[in-house]
Amino acid sequence: MKRLNGDAITIVQEIKKWRSSLANEKGVPEKLVTEIIQAVKRDGDVALRAFTKRFDQVDSPSFRVSEKEMEQALNRIDEKLLIALQKAKENIWCYHERQKRQSYIDAEQPGVIRGQLIRPLEVVGVYVPGGTASYPSSVLMNVIPAKIAGVKRIILVTPPHKEGVNPAVLAAATIAGVDEVYCVGGAQAIAALAYGTASIPKVDKIVGPGNEYVALAKRAVYGIVDIDMHAGPSEIIVVADETANPAFIAADLLSQAEHDTKSMAVCVTTSRDIANELEEQLISQIEHLPRKEIAKQALEQYGAIIVVPTVQAAIDVANELSPEHLELHVQDPIQYLHAVKHAGSIFLGPYTPEALGDYMAGPNHVLPTSGTARFSSPLSVDDFIKKSSFLSYSKDALQEVNEAICLIAETEGLHAHAQAITIRFQEEEEKEDGKALQTYPYYK
Amino acid sequence: MKRLNGDAITIVQEIKKWRSSLANEKGVPEKLVTEIIQAVKRDGDVALRAFTKRFDQVDSPSFRVSEKEMEQALNRIDEKLLIALQKAKENIWCYHERQKRQSYIDAEQPGVIRGQLIRPLEVVGVYVPGGTASYPSSVLMNVIPAKIAGVKRIILVTPPHKEGVNPAVLAAATIAGVDEVYCVGGAQAIAALAYGTASIPKVDKIVGPGNEYVALAKRAVYGIVDIDMHAGPSEIIVVADETANPAFIAADLLSQAEHDTKSMAVCVTTSRDIANELEEQLISQIEHLPRKEIAKQALEQYGAIIVVPTVQAAIDVANELSPEHLELHVQDPIQYLHAVKHAGSIFLGPYTPEALGDYMAGPNHVLPTSGTARFSSPLSVDDFIKKSSFLSYSKDALQEVNEAICLIAETEGLHAHAQAITIRFQEEEEKEDGKALQTYPYYK
Repeated sequence: MKRLNGDAITIVQEIKKWRSSLANEKGVPEKLVTEIIQAVKRDGDVALRAFTKRFDQVDSPSFRVSEKEMEQALNRIDEKLLIALQKAKENIWCYHERQKRQSYIDAEQPGVIRGQLIRPLEVVGVYVPGGTASYPSSVLMNVIPAKIAGVKRIILVTPPHKEGVNPAVLAAATIAGVDEVYCVGGAQAIAALAYGTASIPKVDKIVGPGNEYVALAKRAVYGIVDIDMHAGPSEIIVVADETANPAFIAADLLSQAEHDTKSMAVCVTTSRDIANELEEQLISQIEHLPRKEIAKQALEQYGAIIVVPTVQAAIDVANELSPEHLELHVQDPIQYLHAVKHAGSIFLGPYTPEALGDYMAGPNHVLPTSGTARFSSPLSVDDFIKKSSFLSYSKDALQEVNEAICLIAETEGLHAHAQAITIRFQEEEEKEDGKALQTYPYYK
Repeated sequence: MKRLNGDAITIVQEIKKWRSSLANEKGVPEKLVTEIIQAVKRDGDVALRAFTKRFDQVDSPSFRVSEKEMEQALNRIDEKLLIALQKAKENIWCYHERQKRQSYIDAEQPGVIRGQLIRPLEVVGVYVPGGTASYPSSVLMNVIPAKIAGVKRIILVTPPHKEGVNPAVLAAATIAGVDEVYCVGGAQAIAALAYGTASIPKVDKIVGPGNEYVALAKRAVYGIVDIDMHAGPSEIIVVADETANPAFIAADLLSQAEHDTKSMAVCVTTSRDIANELEEQLISQIEHLPRKEIAKQALEQYGAIIVVPTVQAAIDVANELSPEHLELHVQDPIQYLHAVKHAGSIFLGPYTPEALGDYMAGPNHVLPTSGTARFSSPLSVDDFIKKSSFLSYSKDALQEVNEAICLIAETEGLHAHAQAITIRFQEEEEKEDGKALQTYPYYK
């Protein structure tokens, strides 16, 4: 854990350098990912089966998990866990339901009807990583907003294992209302969702976290389908005044640090005492963690304690870094909400740890990382809808704007645009004159 | 103009092939674009000035257009054009204002406050192409939604010309409320907006159309800043029954075709007579267009007339292709709104030509192309805001979900997450027992 001193601007620059060094790390053979995608696009299931055998050492006649297996998963997990996941679903549902939007129509002008239709995406694919851990919470967070949006068909893909899909993941899928689960993973799963194969349906959008192969494949198929934002390493900034409890802060920084050796955990405090106690707390608390080595590496590389003169100065540092998670351990924290300009999710007060938001409280845990909270947002119902505008003009209403449109079209040198308006009125005049429909001099 | 016969599926496949052949065309030296971006990032204004001299043959001491020049532009254009642009602004503003969203708060459970903040982006850059034509309508369409969102600083960049910026573009910028205009173009302008230089401010998002250099540069800086969607060649599908007026349809197809030799213009009709008359109309109307050669090439390559048995079958073809613009020249068109699943903008009836929407009616003309209307939306106020979630739990409220969170955290193997909750209660128990704060056994 670094103790950063000096002025806030220098410190912010220093931390931004860590980030960009992370962004420049490249470990994945792009060529291999391209080859995988091309093969699946061309050969469908045959390629999918071959890559699954090669990368996952699994050779199964079918990718699909049966509906029976999905239902049975509910009985295969601890009943208390089942209730916990159901409670989480309820909270996530209730929070996201307020994001649902209505189509609108504006019929205020005579002869003019215009509006915006809100429609759910038709088919969505959710990627759930396999590997050592299983993430039922990720299933809930990615699937529930899509359900609320009204997506009719939600496909979950996850890498196969010889022992079958993790029952907690399957149970979460069933609870969230996933329609179909397929055991395919990696770049080949992304390619299958983007182009469709005989057994995997083509989707409109792919969401969910994954390793670098998955991330690269998603970027490659973007445009063919939509994708969610790229998730960088997870981040937290804790802002603390002298009333904060350093033991709580240490626990929260560690919950961030245990994710990944690249996780960023920073505390900005107005109190030297808090800074000192926090360091002690980190040292004592980290010892008992099963993922101690990961957390240690993360804190050594991307952990920092910064002392600044005021809470506002601390929030200025946070705004500059625009973190994924921001905790405010200060007196009357809601009074500072206006001052927070850029953060994915804001946690107010000593009893609102990030872990509460990760699992249970309701707001989404898929958040903008690496400073992108300046312009990106948490995953929401908006990510699973699309909009279409519609327009209807009467003849009279069109005639009223005829000249104005032609003037702009002429300015832009697009005469056929002007003609598309004038022809609708010239035709009649010419007919009345008994002339044939022959030429349509455009607007001069 | 091709006459496509046969079953709808084969026809749709055929048209999709045209599209993907377009998507695979690559003409831009990616390496050069990367070099330009790196140089501007490193050397700022010095590089910017050098590239402007090299690519635009302009060597100016300052990039900035003075505020005086911006105001004067209003007097330099025809008064009728000024009124037309102001009328367009009014309509665009009125249509988009309904897209504005409110932050929400949910304080329904004791001890729990949660919600979502809606905030405007702080700084937005709008690219306006130079070249032979000027596009004041594009300025209005890109800037007004940002203004409504509440963006405080809107920067417009456009390639320099020896004669200065086109007065219609400058007037539109002033009318729309652009804050600053800079004469820089190409990949170097995008790099300047993404990284900032001494004279050009760094922005949070870049929108607006551009040539292939601009498109490639935007994609390269995505992540550093946000960008709008990539606009492919423009497209229209007209669905027509036997009541349609072929002269109107021909004019609308031509207004699409004159944009670009790669524009797609397709009519799907239930009437062989309409198909025949449409062909005649196209032949006669095209003759009088200044951009005849462009329109001819577009129609020859990417134009088609398709005859199908029913209006529903025609709409099915449109849905499969998910066009940017869809016109319904059928009886009682609003009855078919439910059947249209994927289209950027829908134009209903004979007096609602696409050109009306391009300039005047209010809905945005920045629309999803190349079939991306399946998952993308017209440019809107949503594109200039970001969301943050916030959360506050009381101690009691947290204690109630303590066990549930720990169960999920343990399932996911993230014990520091569980500890972040339990420490908030164990501490007290231990204090009460008179024990020192030493170890925090995580949830078992």
